[in-house]
Amino acid sequence: MKSVLIYSGGLDSTVLLYELLAGGDTVLALSVDYGQRHRVEIEHARQIAESLAVEWELADLSGITHLLAGSSLTSREIAVPHGHYAEDNMKQTVVPNRNMIMLAVACGWAIGRQAERVAYAAHAGDHSIYPDCRPEFAEAVDRAFRLADWREVQLYRPFIAMTKAEIVARGAELHVDFGRTWSCYEGGEIHCGKCGTCFERSEAFQLAKVPDPTPYAATPNYPAPKPPPLK
Amino acid sequence: MKSVLIYSGGLDSTVLLYELLAGGDTVLALSVDYGQRHRVEIEHARQIAESLAVEWELADLSGITHLLAGSSLTSREIAVPHGHYAEDNMKQTVVPNRNMIMLAVACGWAIGRQAERVAYAAHAGDHSIYPDCRPEFAEAVDRAFRLADWREVQLYRPFIAMTKAEIVARGAELHVDFGRTWSCYEGGEIHCGKCGTCFERSEAFQLAKVPDPTPYAATPNYPAPKPPPLK
Repeated sequence: MKSVLIYSGGLDSTVLLYELLAGGDTVLALSVDYGQRHRVEIEHARQIAESLAVEWELADLSGITHLLAGSSLTSREIAVPHGHYAEDNMKQTVVPNRNMIMLAVACGWAIGRQAERVAYAAHAGDHSIYPDCRPEFAEAVDRAFRLADWREVQLYRPFIAMTKAEIVARGAELHVDFGRTWSCYEGGEIHCGKCGTCFERSEAFQLAKVPDPTPYAATPNYPAPKPPPLK
Repeated sequence: MKSVLIYSGGLDSTVLLYELLAGGDTVLALSVDYGQRHRVEIEHARQIAESLAVEWELADLSGITHLLAGSSLTSREIAVPHGHYAEDNMKQTVVPNRNMIMLAVACGWAIGRQAERVAYAAHAGDHSIYPDCRPEFAEAVDRAFRLADWREVQLYRPFIAMTKAEIVARGAELHVDFGRTWSCYEGGEIHCGKCGTCFERSEAFQLAKVPDPTPYAATPNYPAPKPPPLK
């Protein structure tokens, strides 16, 4: 089967890349530049795809980012919220309709290249934070995909019911080279260890009991170990 | 109500622009540069919006057109098919998933600007030609729009059951300045009169019995007048 993978170079989509290859798919990996400040992820995506001999393309959406203002992921004037994901502060990291735009572009590539499906790595932990990571949203997009052309394209989201820890565990089985993946929203030289994705990443390795090879600028300490009670 | 209008500068979307303004809407008009050879339409769109004091923006998708190859609308190596629309030759004019991409970008702008709806001018004549102009497709996109953010955005398509001739008739009632609109896929100085959209445009004016102010390089002659029977 031929699949277009929405590929950020992060942990989840890299595990999905390995999963698709293990299943025998021909993968077309698509990274999206939507003006994110953590643009370093694109270079990680390109390098991982190259190392696996996977065709890789960049969708450059810089011509529309002026329409999608107001998010800390694209605006340098708004600070990335620190700490663990929680609905209130993470709303700031939402780029309006980012997922539907990326999925629509991926579907266009899939139609042109006769791919049967678009794969993306939305997982259970995303649902409560981002409306456009919910299963109902994905189902509506899947229906639109199937109707968009004479030939059907399917939206494939095998991680939709999995936690990030379960994705890490699956990645370990597939011998994913986690050290090459990139999660941090800050986009510095190494993972900051303070932003929501760094906490989430570190936590997933802890919960999965898989060694975390990531160098962090500051040690993520979530869940914070409780101090021993004073006696 | 605030509406983001997908605005090509063509006949249908210009009538819809007038319709929305007549209904009291605040309109944000969005033109999309997807590398179409008839890029002249964008300038027509900008000028019409300006003349009506409507906010106008351009979504520049030139960073993704390499993924959407194979259409005569974006490739200079493929000729625009001449003659009236018919499924076989018009398939060449389809840019893969163009409508979903445009709609997703428009929805992103609508979310960011707190608009209640995205309006677009798909009409009954489009259905048989383009899969992504069918009502079922629009319904799936509408559902995705409503789920994409914490606040619902609606997909508004008031012309979905109308013919192009009916749209022209409605435009005449609204005193649309048809001479400023642009339809031709060739993108020359004036309408070519030979491509599918020129035929369709000319035919719509004839059927609506509305004077066609368009200068054509070659007179469109569809439906060809039947010669009088020989006696």
